[in-house]
Amino acid sequence: MSKIFVDACLGKETPYTPVWMMRQAGRYLPEYKEVRAKAGDFLNLCHNPEMAAEVTLQPVDIVGVDAAIMFSDILVVPNEMGMELKFVKGEGPVFSNPIRSQEDLDKLSAGEATANKLTYVYETIKIVKEKLADDKALIGFAGAPWTLATYMIEGQGSKTYNISKKMMYSNPELLHNILAKVTEVVKYYLLKQIEAGADVVQIFDSWASAIEPSKYDEFSWKYMVEIADFLKERHPEVPIIMFPKGVAAFIERGLVYGNFDVFGVDWGTPMALAKEKLGNRYVLQGNMEPTRLYSKEATKECVSSLAELMKDGRHIFNLGHGILPDVPVENAKYFVNLCKELSKR
Amino acid sequence: MSKIFVDACLGKETPYTPVWMMRQAGRYLPEYKEVRAKAGDFLNLCHNPEMAAEVTLQPVDIVGVDAAIMFSDILVVPNEMGMELKFVKGEGPVFSNPIRSQEDLDKLSAGEATANKLTYVYETIKIVKEKLADDKALIGFAGAPWTLATYMIEGQGSKTYNISKKMMYSNPELLHNILAKVTEVVKYYLLKQIEAGADVVQIFDSWASAIEPSKYDEFSWKYMVEIADFLKERHPEVPIIMFPKGVAAFIERGLVYGNFDVFGVDWGTPMALAKEKLGNRYVLQGNMEPTRLYSKEATKECVSSLAELMKDGRHIFNLGHGILPDVPVENAKYFVNLCKELSKR
Repeated sequence: MSKIFVDACLGKETPYTPVWMMRQAGRYLPEYKEVRAKAGDFLNLCHNPEMAAEVTLQPVDIVGVDAAIMFSDILVVPNEMGMELKFVKGEGPVFSNPIRSQEDLDKLSAGEATANKLTYVYETIKIVKEKLADDKALIGFAGAPWTLATYMIEGQGSKTYNISKKMMYSNPELLHNILAKVTEVVKYYLLKQIEAGADVVQIFDSWASAIEPSKYDEFSWKYMVEIADFLKERHPEVPIIMFPKGVAAFIERGLVYGNFDVFGVDWGTPMALAKEKLGNRYVLQGNMEPTRLYSKEATKECVSSLAELMKDGRHIFNLGHGILPDVPVENAKYFVNLCKELSKR
Repeated sequence: MSKIFVDACLGKETPYTPVWMMRQAGRYLPEYKEVRAKAGDFLNLCHNPEMAAEVTLQPVDIVGVDAAIMFSDILVVPNEMGMELKFVKGEGPVFSNPIRSQEDLDKLSAGEATANKLTYVYETIKIVKEKLADDKALIGFAGAPWTLATYMIEGQGSKTYNISKKMMYSNPELLHNILAKVTEVVKYYLLKQIEAGADVVQIFDSWASAIEPSKYDEFSWKYMVEIADFLKERHPEVPIIMFPKGVAAFIERGLVYGNFDVFGVDWGTPMALAKEKLGNRYVLQGNMEPTRLYSKEATKECVSSLAELMKDGRHIFNLGHGILPDVPVENAKYFVNLCKELSKR
C-alpha cells in the first residue's frame, strides 16, 4: 500500500496534501502526559521503547496526522558519545562537561560503534512499525551537527551561543573537528533508523539562525549535505527532509545544493517567498505559525491561504515550529482535518 | 560644528563612515562596572542622571565612537505607565502584574503626562550634552510599541511569546489597545528627548521577528510609522533610526514605507541583500556579527568587506546586535579604529 506522506515527499501526486505537526507527540495530549508521568524522567521515556512507541503512535490515532515521528530527543546522540546529560526543570537539557578543547573532544566516542549504542531508538521504530497502519509513514530524525555541537559546547541552551561562536572565529579548526565527529555518528544513526524501518528522515537544524549567513555553509550546511549523500548512496528511495530554522535570509543567497527532497519552512519565512526561491528545487513543508492553533479562525485563515498558494502540490502541511503544550487538542484536530479537506484533489 | 554621525544619518557625504556599537555603554568596560557597582540596582543607575551620563560618555572617551547613546532601559516606559518593574538576577526584567485584560490596561497611565514623569532621562541627556564634544552626537531611544507590549503582556522575557501571540490571534482588539496606549507615551517620550538635546533617536524593535511576516505591519510597523510621523512634523531635522531585529524575510515583501532615515541591519541579514532592497530608501546601519569582536582577524575580515561593499557611503558602521560583556576592550577599540581607517575618503 502506498503511503501518501512518502509519495508527497518524493513530489508524486497525492489525493490530498498530507499533514503532520512538529512536536505532535507532546504535552498538549493528556494521553502523552499520562505515559510521561509513568516514565518519570524525560530521558527514561526516550530509553523505553514500549513507552516511546506508545507516545509516537498517539497523534496518529487521536489527531489523525499522516505521519508519525519517532519519539526521542536529538541529544541522545552526544549522550551516547559519552557526555553526561540531565534535563533540569526550568533550565532544559544540561551537559555537565561541555566540550571546550581537543582533549575534551578526544574523550568522546564516535562513528558506527556509537550509533550502535542507540538500540532503544531502533527498537522504538520496530515496535511502531508493527502497529502503524500501512498507509501511514514513520519519520526518523536527528539533530544537525551544528545544532548538536552548540549544546555540546555551551553545555546547555543559550541565547547568544557566544562560546560556540567565539570558537568559530578564534579556533575554527576545533569547531570543525567537533562537527566532523558528530557528523560521523549522525550518518550511521540515521542509516540504522532507516534499516529499522523509518520511511523518511528529517534533520533538524534548530539553531541554524545562530550562524551569520556568510558562515552557514562552512559550519552547518555542508555537513548536512555529507549526511544526505551518505544516506542516498545506500537508500535512494528514502526521502530526506531538511529543516534549517530561521534561514529566510539565506534563500536569496542560493544555499540550495544538497541531496534533500523536502525543505522545512519555518513560520518566519513567508511561504510565497520560499516557493519562489526553492519550490522547484524541493517539496516544501510547513509553515503555519504555531500560536495560530490557539484560535480556529486564525488557523483557518492560514490553512486556506496555504492551500491556495500550494494548490499545485509539492507541499506537506505542518507548523512552522513545534506545537505548544497548552493548545487544545480539539484545535489540533481541526487543523489536521482542514488541511486534508482544503487540499482534496 | 557639524556632527559626522548626524550628517551620515541624513545621507550627506562625510570624511569617513562613522561608527558606534549597540550596548557600547556596558559591562565589557571596567569603568562601567565601577559605576554600576556604586549604583547598586540596575534601575538605580537608570534613575540617577549623573551616573547615567557618566556611563553614556565612557565609550566616546575610551573606545572613540562617533556617537554616544544615552544610558537607560526601554522598560522605564511601562514602568512609568504604572507597572512595577524588577530586574531579577538570572531572569532579567520582571513585571509582577502583567497586562492580560482591558481592565489591567485601564489602570495604566498614558500620553504626555506619563512621558513627563521620565525626567531622569531628560536630565541625563542635558548633562551628557554639556560634556560631549561638539563633533560627537547623542542618540536617544525607545523600545518599539510591539517590543514593549510583549514584556508587558508576558511579564518577562519569553522564548515563544505565546501569551502575546495568543492575544494577537484570539483578541487582537485588546492587543491593539495596548499598542496604541504605548505608542502615545513613546511619541512624547522621544519628542522630549529631542527637546532635551538628543541629536538622533533610534527605535528598537528587538522582538520584531516574533511576529509572522503577514502580521508585522498590522501589529508593529504601522505604530512605529505613526511615531516617526509625529516626530518629523515637529523636528524634521532630527534623524530617526529604525532597528527591527530579524526581519530579513520582510525585506522581500517591501515593508519599507515610513518616515525613517536609517535602517539598522541585524547580523542575520546579509548587508548585500539589505543594500539591494533598502539601500536607496534608507541609510543602512550595521551589521557586524558581535561575536566577531572576540577575534581581531574575524573583525578585520568583516570590516574590510563592509567597507568595500558600502564604499559609496549611505552607511554607518555598527554591530548587528549588542556587544557582549566578555569582549576585550582592546578589540572594541580595534574595531572602531579600523572602521574609520578603511572608510576614509
